[in-house]
Amino acid sequence: MSAARLIGVGVGPGDPELMTLKALRALREADVVAHFAKAGNVSRARTIAESHLRPDVTELTLLYPVTTEIPRHAPAYCSEIAAFYDGCAETIAAHLDAKRAVAVLCEGDPLFYGSYMHLHVRLAARYPTEVIAGVTGMSGCWSAVGAPIAQGDDVFTVLPGTLPEEELERRLADADAAVIMKLGRNLPKVRRALARSGQLGRALYVERGTMKDAVVMRLADKADDCAPYFAIVLVPGWEGRR
Amino acid sequence: MSAARLIGVGVGPGDPELMTLKALRALREADVVAHFAKAGNVSRARTIAESHLRPDVTELTLLYPVTTEIPRHAPAYCSEIAAFYDGCAETIAAHLDAKRAVAVLCEGDPLFYGSYMHLHVRLAARYPTEVIAGVTGMSGCWSAVGAPIAQGDDVFTVLPGTLPEEELERRLADADAAVIMKLGRNLPKVRRALARSGQLGRALYVERGTMKDAVVMRLADKADDCAPYFAIVLVPGWEGRR
Repeated sequence: MSAARLIGVGVGPGDPELMTLKALRALREADVVAHFAKAGNVSRARTIAESHLRPDVTELTLLYPVTTEIPRHAPAYCSEIAAFYDGCAETIAAHLDAKRAVAVLCEGDPLFYGSYMHLHVRLAARYPTEVIAGVTGMSGCWSAVGAPIAQGDDVFTVLPGTLPEEELERRLADADAAVIMKLGRNLPKVRRALARSGQLGRALYVERGTMKDAVVMRLADKADDCAPYFAIVLVPGWEGRR
Repeated sequence: MSAARLIGVGVGPGDPELMTLKALRALREADVVAHFAKAGNVSRARTIAESHLRPDVTELTLLYPVTTEIPRHAPAYCSEIAAFYDGCAETIAAHLDAKRAVAVLCEGDPLFYGSYMHLHVRLAARYPTEVIAGVTGMSGCWSAVGAPIAQGDDVFTVLPGTLPEEELERRLADADAAVIMKLGRNLPKVRRALARSGQLGRALYVERGTMKDAVVMRLADKADDCAPYFAIVLVPGWEGRR
């Protein structure tokens, strides 16, 4: 019998070869493997880890509630999402109480903008917990592109594309190097903020960075404003380059 | 015979189990394995990767020139360092011209504040080049500590401790989440900037985060100002935590 253990497992940015040895060991040892998914979608983290799942492992899919018709900052959205995470945590707690090791698969790095964090804050004080760092999506992207992102005394900033346009502009003007995440419908706003901060010329647009069907181009050359939510923009720093 | 190929190999933050499958494959396939080291020190990246080096591989140690008596921004320092990287690039180019695959070991992630970048900008346009993303030192640290670092619409900033005190203070006051690197003798200044920006209470001090002898404490509880250069400070964001 295993000992009760919660394990946040970073599976990296998409290429299954970018999983760590430690993540593989956690998948070999876990009794239960949990992953978040949207209704009608397969979990991206599960797809990355698929070939390493034991045939006899118990799988637990944590299905996000359908909330697309509720505005993101509305109290109804927040309370429905909080109730969802509460429920997920209690489902996992039941496995932990039965002395099982539960691995939660996380795309990228578990504690860097990931859903696992909602379970971590609910369970880590109650059960033995381990977090296995993973290669982030942004590292996967700048490596695939071969774009040195930050060096020396560069200040590096990660900006969600959901921020107001004026704030994006102000922060981009003040950053040596930046990554903008959560593009989707925010791309036209992000493009304007980059132009007004003088950073559009350096900006690279990357979709599915570490996958075979990756899309990479200068953002200035992108003719349309269609972008998936998980596409990112890189603004490489290191102006001197010596 | 191999084909000429330059590979920047991220070996992760310190724990050898945080190496990726892709890094391991690169080490199996490379004819030459190169690593940077300071005089009198073993390369940390080599130590991490050691058990995966083939016994018959050609090793190339790139030994930094001794520059501790020259101020970091003095022209003499810059030209000596640039000449050093020029020389390293030409040594590696000779191996590439002989159709060898050369893996350059990089602690953390190759294109995120790493020495490999100096070789990349000198060689990537001339030879087939691949960069293998790695788990960064900062991911290793916040995972080891179990500190969720950024979530939702948080702005996340990486600050070198070498920045002027006023700039550190201004940027810390404006960040939801932050990491401060390059501590060493900068720690007293970093501590004052954290205090004046109101962030000292949240700051965590981490030394050798992913190693067995890790040191972790609230920075406010650290009684002295002794810190190695590679220690870091984490300022976790995600104030709401639900």
